[in-house]
This record gives sequence, C-alpha cells and structure tokens, in this order.
Amino acid sequence: MTKIDVFAHVLPINFYDHMKQFDDNLLAKNPYLQNDMLTNIEKIKTGLAPDVKQVISNVNLNPEDYVDDKTSVELCRDANEELIAMVKDNDIFLSAVAMLPMNSVNKAVKIIEDQVVTNKELVGVQLFTRALNKPITSDEYEPIFAKLNDLNIPIWLHPVFDESRTDNNITFSWEYELTQAMYGLVKKGYFEKYPNLKVIVHHAGAMIPFFSERIKYTMSETEYNDFKKFYVDTALLGNPKALELTVDFFGVSHVLFGTDAPFGIPPFGATNKIVSAIDNMNIPADQKNMIYSENLKNMLN
Amino acid sequence: MTKIDVFAHVLPINFYDHMKQFDDNLLAKNPYLQNDMLTNIEKIKTGLAPDVKQVISNVNLNPEDYVDDKTSVELCRDANEELIAMVKDNDIFLSAVAMLPMNSVNKAVKIIEDQVVTNKELVGVQLFTRALNKPITSDEYEPIFAKLNDLNIPIWLHPVFDESRTDNNITFSWEYELTQAMYGLVKKGYFEKYPNLKVIVHHAGAMIPFFSERIKYTMSETEYNDFKKFYVDTALLGNPKALELTVDFFGVSHVLFGTDAPFGIPPFGATNKIVSAIDNMNIPADQKNMIYSENLKNMLN
Repeated sequence: MTKIDVFAHVLPINFYDHMKQFDDNLLAKNPYLQNDMLTNIEKIKTGLAPDVKQVISNVNLNPEDYVDDKTSVELCRDANEELIAMVKDNDIFLSAVAMLPMNSVNKAVKIIEDQVVTNKELVGVQLFTRALNKPITSDEYEPIFAKLNDLNIPIWLHPVFDESRTDNNITFSWEYELTQAMYGLVKKGYFEKYPNLKVIVHHAGAMIPFFSERIKYTMSETEYNDFKKFYVDTALLGNPKALELTVDFFGVSHVLFGTDAPFGIPPFGATNKIVSAIDNMNIPADQKNMIYSENLKNMLN
Repeated sequence: MTKIDVFAHVLPINFYDHMKQFDDNLLAKNPYLQNDMLTNIEKIKTGLAPDVKQVISNVNLNPEDYVDDKTSVELCRDANEELIAMVKDNDIFLSAVAMLPMNSVNKAVKIIEDQVVTNKELVGVQLFTRALNKPITSDEYEPIFAKLNDLNIPIWLHPVFDESRTDNNITFSWEYELTQAMYGLVKKGYFEKYPNLKVIVHHAGAMIPFFSERIKYTMSETEYNDFKKFYVDTALLGNPKALELTVDFFGVSHVLFGTDAPFGIPPFGATNKIVSAIDNMNIPADQKNMIYSENLKNMLN
C-alpha cells in the first residue's frame, strides 16, 4: 500500500535561482535552504522508501518578504508551474501545494481561481501562520479564506516565527505559533463562517491534543468543537503515544501521514521514524491505512 | 490511602487584606481572586474528597508587583507565617509552599535560610516563570536557585503571562510560558550547575511530553536529559492518555498528583476529574500510589 506523505518540502530550483537575485544574503538568513534534499530530486529518490509518495510544498521562503507585489505574483505563478512540472515528471511526487503572494491578496485569490483550480497537480495552497509578520487571521487575508471555502480547496498551515519576539526557539516557539494561529482561526469564527474550510496543520496539531481538556474548560462548546475540525499531520519525529492522543482528539479521519521531510533527521528526514511510530500506534490496521492514504483521498473529494 | 494534591492554591486572608491597601483596583486587575474557595477554609473542606490533602501555595498575586522591597519582604514573611498557621490549624492542609519577595533577592535568600528551613510546614518555595516581567532565569535571580540547591529545597514553578505580549490567552500562552521557563532553565545549564535542583512544574510539564522527540532532534543529549529532571504535576483537567505520555517522558517517579484547585472546574476545582483521569491511566496500581503520594514523600526526603 502506498503511503502518502502530505507534508514534504522542496525548493523548486528555478524559483530558488530567481529568489537569490533579490537578496545576496538569502542563504545566511535562511541556512536551512542549504539542503540538497530540497532541490536534488535524484537524491530525494535515493532516500525515500519505495512505498512512500510525497505531496510537496515549498520550503519556508516567501516572495512577499523580499519583493514588491508585482514580482511576488510572478514568482508564485512561476513556482506553481514548476511544482506542477515536478509532479508530472517524477513518480515519487503525487501532487503539490500552491504558493500565494501574500502582499497581493487580490492576485492570490486570482491564482486560486485560475491556477490552482485548473491544475489537478495542485491540491491545495500553503499558508503560513503569519504573512509579512501579521497573523494569518488578519482581516486583510480573509478574502483568501473566503475563496478557498467557496472552491472547497484545503489549506496546508505551516508555522513561522513571530519576528517581533526575541525569545523564539525552533523547539517550542514554532509549535506555539501554530497553536496561536489555530486559536485565532477558531476565535475568528472561520469554521462557522466558512463551513467548507479545510486546514491541515503541521506537527500533529501542536498544543491542541495535550491541552484538549484545557480548551474544554476555558473556551465555549462551539470553539472546542471547532478545534476538532482541523486536519493534522503526524510530524512529531516519532512518539506513538502522542500520535494516539492526536487521533483521540481530532478523530482518525482527520489525521494524515506527514513527515516534514527532509527536515528533522538528516539527511533524508524522519520518514522512516514516523512510519515506525504509526506502525507502533495502538490502533487497528484499517485506521493506519486511513492515516497513510485514505484520509487525504477523502479530503480531496 | 491519602492523596496529596501538591498544587492547590489559597489566598491567605490577612495577606489579601494587606495587599488591598496598596491598590484600589486589585480585584479588577485580578478577577480570579474573587473566589471564595481561595479564602474560605470551611467551604474548601466541604468540596474536598475525604482522602485528599493539599499542599497549599499562594494564588498568583505577588507583592513585588505592587510595593517596594522593604514592604514586599514583610508581606512575604507574614504571608508565610499565615500559611504555616493554616497548615497547623487544618487537617486538610498537609504543608505549604513559601512566597519570596522577588524585588529583593538578598532578602528572598534570607527567607529561605531562616524561615523556610526552620518551619517543617514549609516544604518548598513557589517561583513564577517571570518576576517583575523578567524571565526567572535572569541572572539577578540566580542566587535563589543557588541557595535552594545548597539547602535541597524544591521549587514549585507556576506560569504567568509575559506582559510585553499582546496576544496572550489563558488556554495556551500560560502553557507556553511554562515551557519557555523550562527551556531557559535547561539552556542556562542549571541542572548541571545545581545538581540538587528540584523543580515541580505545573500542568504536567506543559509542551515537553508531546514534543519530546522534537527536543531530542533539536537540542543536545545533555539538554534532552535535563528536561527529564523536572518534576511535574497532573493538572490537565483530565486526559488520561496525556498523563500516560507525561509518565513516559518524565518517568513515574517524577509525576505528582496536583490539581490547581480551586481553578479549572467551578466551584471546587478539578480534583475529582483529575483523580478519575489518574484512576483511568493504563499503568499499574503501585505507580498510581507513587503519583498520589509516595513521590512527594521521596522528593522531600
């Protein structure tokens, strides 16, 4: 049975070459980009188990942080075409998640309408917890959520640091930012306003499963139930019992195999470790199949 | 068998009366103080299961936020005497945790030496994740850790908000602050420098158990192992599987029954819910006894 990794990162090489033109210090600012396994597809193939296929999303490198709106729109459109070609050309890539230019919300909506919808290789869009260091729940980004709801297109939600903070660390702050974005989406009532909204959250839903009873006793019943509407991946670098807790809260149909490859464990990522953790979960085999592939298929229907 | 709740809050009534003199808006600033179950011991008794005894700590109301150093030292000393009297006068209180004036570190050290050590009713000190909105790991507070290490006196670590942040919420930020304080203590190398240090962390160690593998792959082996040196309570408002995950990471000898009473579930707190969660944990009965009472007794030896 094929396992579909819903959260695997790449760095489309032409997009990267373009981006380098806009900032001489791109690598110094983003040292994680210096990773062959983001760009070298032949090498990626050597590290990937034969039964795994990836849904690819661009690594955390967003045009709006570097260029004006006109250029960012072009960069995103071109990068999306490049992602489509990567999927078409390589069996290991099942599909891709589109990039949006967050300094041009109107054009981002247009990309959803005329590029994401029309290319079957693009199965959703990636949003970050903040864009231009404003929370993704800021009013100015709402048209994107409205359009995705209208067209029933899912969101891949990825963390970024809040750059206004001085005590960020990759171990925990990253997960807090995911949590705060989920909190913001629930508090803004988006799940009530946009009932088709589908959001796949990285890292097993961050702080939600462990603090689920805290949600129950500090928030409303509607809000508590809205948290259950998120979809989450399995990118915890192992930890079967934490994954069981994740399934307990979100329900097995909302948990999708996802690894954050190639990050986590060098050089190829934590794919094997996470497969082993899922295999060791105390749940029935058919539920594991749901996590490995069926849930994504159902979600995209 | 008696269950010892290591994290139960009270508000000593004379201390409260004194504090009200320093700020007319004390209640408006701290609405959670308006809770009979913090001050009315006869009412507390009516809500407490007959087999539970509490280790009491002052609710989150710290003199250094309101008064000068001389006054805060007096307030803390008096409040500690009041806590001692409450323990002596009431069977339901097993012992108490001392307050320290954090705007006078020298005098805080003195209180440890001549008030905490000499009164068997005081079994430790409560520290908050920040004092005067500076991280508890700030250099100026280090003499307190050094003294507690010398005298083998445990710390009860309680969260507070970082007041410089505008997006705090009680559901998650509280837990993030606990996590960041733990991260700070580990990063500062306190567990290496102060090998007797014992820190009981509220809320089951916050983000640590769920993200334990993330710690493993983003921090050093020493740091990973240092996280295991924390003691944690069970104040998750339920969630047996999350408690199992907590035991998996910290080891059963580092998990202590603690409820955050009277908060969580009105009017008496979540004591019954948390007892039920521990009873439903998939661990042997003798391990439950360790959590309910043996671990605290061993820790205080």
